[in-house]
Amino acid sequence: MLHLSDPPAFYRLHVFLCTNRRPEGHPRGSCAAQGSESLRNYLKARSKELGLGDVRINSAGCLDRCELGPTMVIYPEGVWYHFRTTEDVEDILQTHLLGGGRVTRLLLQPTDTPETRRQVEA
Amino acid sequence: MLHLSDPPAFYRLHVFLCTNRRPEGHPRGSCAAQGSESLRNYLKARSKELGLGDVRINSAGCLDRCELGPTMVIYPEGVWYHFRTTEDVEDILQTHLLGGGRVTRLLLQPTDTPETRRQVEA
Repeated sequence: MLHLSDPPAFYRLHVFLCTNRRPEGHPRGSCAAQGSESLRNYLKARSKELGLGDVRINSAGCLDRCELGPTMVIYPEGVWYHFRTTEDVEDILQTHLLGGGRVTRLLLQPTDTPETRRQVEA
Repeated sequence: MLHLSDPPAFYRLHVFLCTNRRPEGHPRGSCAAQGSESLRNYLKARSKELGLGDVRINSAGCLDRCELGPTMVIYPEGVWYHFRTTEDVEDILQTHLLGGGRVTRLLLQPTDTPETRRQVEA
């Protein structure tokens, strides 16, 4: 919970993309095995290209939502996304990071499972 | 910025400790070179021991405040800490993660530099 005396934000938006890699065949899978590293590089490069100086694109260890991966979380709002392609990542960049909106089709709910995601994507 | 329609938080508190390692002798240093990995392991183990199921302890790539490292940031509040010892990390665990308070002596301001930190610690 925020305290009134807390220092101002250091980054306007702080984006963490899971780049954890598990051995092939692990039952939970992993975000890196699903291409998160190159998508993270894409987002970082695009953010630099657009001069988003107040947004930080970070790699993170396992965010523990592997079954829904690749995943990212954007703070301070704590909004989670699933992403699979550069188009997904570009959409998050344009709509959320630049526009302050939400990419509804990629948004993760706390209760999401692979099954609920399949229904959303169907 | 939070939208009213955003999903509820997935983690009550999401802690990111920088575990980036640069080659020895790099002018900016790095958090791992200053012991962040074992301190991250300590915090993760203690958090598990205390059953903090709604708090996630994560490693992160470079948080880009290397000169003030090791550093961590706690979301959603976006509070940053410098830490050096298990006592520091235990204090953050007890005071912030469990107690909802702040560890003033370790708190980083957005404008902090190694010089301002030396003054705080003196």
